[in-house]
Amino acid sequence: MIAELISVGTELLLGNIVNTNAAFLSEKLALLGYSVYFQTTVGDNRERLYMAIKGALDRSDVVILSGGLGPTEDDLTKETAAEVLGASLYEDPSVKESIQDYFKQRKSKKITENNWKQAMVPEGAKILPNANGTAPGLILSAKEGTKYVILLPGPPGELKPMFEEQVEPFLSDLEPGTIYSQMVKIHGIGESVVEDQIKDLIDGLENPTIAPYAKTGEVHLRVTAKAASRKEAKKLVQPVCEELKKRFRRAVYTMKEDETLEENIVALLKKYDLTLATAESCTGGLLAGRLVNVPGVSEVFSQGFVTYSNKAKRKLLDVSKSTLKKHGAVSKQTAKEMASGAAILTGADVAVSITGLAGPGGATKEKPVGMVCMSCYIKEKNYVKEYYFTGNRQKIRENSVVYALSLLRQCILENYENKN
Amino acid sequence: MIAELISVGTELLLGNIVNTNAAFLSEKLALLGYSVYFQTTVGDNRERLYMAIKGALDRSDVVILSGGLGPTEDDLTKETAAEVLGASLYEDPSVKESIQDYFKQRKSKKITENNWKQAMVPEGAKILPNANGTAPGLILSAKEGTKYVILLPGPPGELKPMFEEQVEPFLSDLEPGTIYSQMVKIHGIGESVVEDQIKDLIDGLENPTIAPYAKTGEVHLRVTAKAASRKEAKKLVQPVCEELKKRFRRAVYTMKEDETLEENIVALLKKYDLTLATAESCTGGLLAGRLVNVPGVSEVFSQGFVTYSNKAKRKLLDVSKSTLKKHGAVSKQTAKEMASGAAILTGADVAVSITGLAGPGGATKEKPVGMVCMSCYIKEKNYVKEYYFTGNRQKIRENSVVYALSLLRQCILENYENKN
Repeated sequence: MIAELISVGTELLLGNIVNTNAAFLSEKLALLGYSVYFQTTVGDNRERLYMAIKGALDRSDVVILSGGLGPTEDDLTKETAAEVLGASLYEDPSVKESIQDYFKQRKSKKITENNWKQAMVPEGAKILPNANGTAPGLILSAKEGTKYVILLPGPPGELKPMFEEQVEPFLSDLEPGTIYSQMVKIHGIGESVVEDQIKDLIDGLENPTIAPYAKTGEVHLRVTAKAASRKEAKKLVQPVCEELKKRFRRAVYTMKEDETLEENIVALLKKYDLTLATAESCTGGLLAGRLVNVPGVSEVFSQGFVTYSNKAKRKLLDVSKSTLKKHGAVSKQTAKEMASGAAILTGADVAVSITGLAGPGGATKEKPVGMVCMSCYIKEKNYVKEYYFTGNRQKIRENSVVYALSLLRQCILENYENKN
Repeated sequence: MIAELISVGTELLLGNIVNTNAAFLSEKLALLGYSVYFQTTVGDNRERLYMAIKGALDRSDVVILSGGLGPTEDDLTKETAAEVLGASLYEDPSVKESIQDYFKQRKSKKITENNWKQAMVPEGAKILPNANGTAPGLILSAKEGTKYVILLPGPPGELKPMFEEQVEPFLSDLEPGTIYSQMVKIHGIGESVVEDQIKDLIDGLENPTIAPYAKTGEVHLRVTAKAASRKEAKKLVQPVCEELKKRFRRAVYTMKEDETLEENIVALLKKYDLTLATAESCTGGLLAGRLVNVPGVSEVFSQGFVTYSNKAKRKLLDVSKSTLKKHGAVSKQTAKEMASGAAILTGADVAVSITGLAGPGGATKEKPVGMVCMSCYIKEKNYVKEYYFTGNRQKIRENSVVYALSLLRQCILENYENKN
């Protein structure tokens, strides 16, 4: 089955917003086994929108439009799609009621006359209730029921849940065969190294397939199989996942779709009843900020230091003057003392430190921009790493955070899990 | 003049990456006075790419393609564009040389045979050297010189500088009349409030226009005018900017295109020779992390605390037990003591604190998720604010950071700048 996306909105054509809906929908569609060959963005303009819908419907089985379902006169996605399909609009009482309810719940707002425009629905359409806004989604059938046009609201907070809860099951039923997919998330290894190590699998496999998604400091591998039943598809996926786990061992931190590296680490800290402290120089709080992403982190992480200057490293973390003088602020020795200092001062079981040169200034012959030292203090031992990251200031700092998380995870496993 | 974008890459159709190039190019084109009516994304497929280029060229004056200029067999943007235009390819010696130089500089990498594919150039093309990669950009003329096809490399780190340095001047010369635009950046006021206060200007003005861009906790207003000369266009823009400054006063933090709120604040701290410390609870280091975005920040900011638990607030910041007991961790009183504690302990001139409920758990009847208290300690005085933010954990924390920066800026101005 071939699907095609049309994003509607003048704000996209002006570059006011980035089109994240297209990436979201495309990833979902690939996962459902649909091929996407074209994505088009078009403004709130009847003529051009008509042309775009017509063109897409000629070459694809399912056309998904997002945006332009609002209450203003500018919004004409629904009207134009109905026109392409030759359907007329009627006021749907159930939609009208849910719009009324929506405003009733949010007391302060008054319903203006143009809100009722959103209760107008093309004949024969399947209505997708919108739990997060006033514009319902719509599924329209086209070309004697052989094709479909699906209309979704533009705001991601409305589009995403509507797609996942109502459109995905519909599309899954349309596409014969079942897709099963499993995520394998790897940390601390570069994308090219990962791809190199599984080149034989990527090239050799047809069903399941392996698709790599590179994130900063992480690589996510999605293993996807298609079969007549979910059970069969799962059976195809599992041996490949086992093989990946065998190849990457501890670098695989989760097989759960939604688990992040920081969540995984917080869970490990809880499992072994460990408390954590952080000490950051060049990342200036980003490591702590990332850990605090995890709800309930306060049980295990509650204290962190930002020590950007030498003075702060001495004063807040007890890094010795002679270390700073002899080895410099960006050195394995300083990283080591920052981590032990943070652990000792806070009484935490584990501490992680980062000190590095994020640039653009400050480089010397021995210490280039991108040089980052980090340490993990655990069970009265210090583990130390030195990296040379590339990219701009932002990129270097993001990489530092992920590699520090990575070091932390490895140290917990090494000291608390069965060694294997 | 009408411009159109074609983004080439199967990774976009699979949703592996978000198309930020399209937003970047569209914003730039709007600024140059070009209208963009269509953006298309298509995979690395000769037939569909041919169709997309041909269709775009029929309806637009300038077609900009990004991506698919790499050295692999999959990359065929250049070959297909040349085919549409009936141009043949030749090996350009200057491009070949610059590819050689690029690899020489990066010692470790070996040049593979397929890299020379990137030295092949369509006859008559203007070559745009690539300072950040091996694929040059190309400007091809079409339809007897009345239209243009512009090819740019896909990686944003290559595309953006190439566009700004080489394509912008070219397009600016093509479009008669000059565009002048001025940014007015506002912090600490919600988007709807800003729009409400300038509704008369947005509706009433045709040249210049005002376009609002909402960021978290900020609103950027771009004032753009078109005239025969830059001087004339600037003359149209200026009174509107003055009017905006009059309406939003101190909430306008900069009129510079590239200056961020944190850069503006770091500059203010330097101007008044002030040092800063931070104390964060629910934002857990994000405020410090944002300040450390600014190169050279270490002169004024070098010490920060993450105190997520009550114990950490007491231990690291000297918040009194009775305050925590009587008012709770999320309270104006605790925020106040966190800020003064951080300033006193570090010896900094100014300190900012944040304590709040980012959720999802932890809400009580009196203190809902989203309640955030913050304080700024300056000249031995405490300024305190209480906010109720909406959205998820991430959104609440991002808003907290911006509003804390906003409070900090207001406090510096109030205490150090001429009162006005």
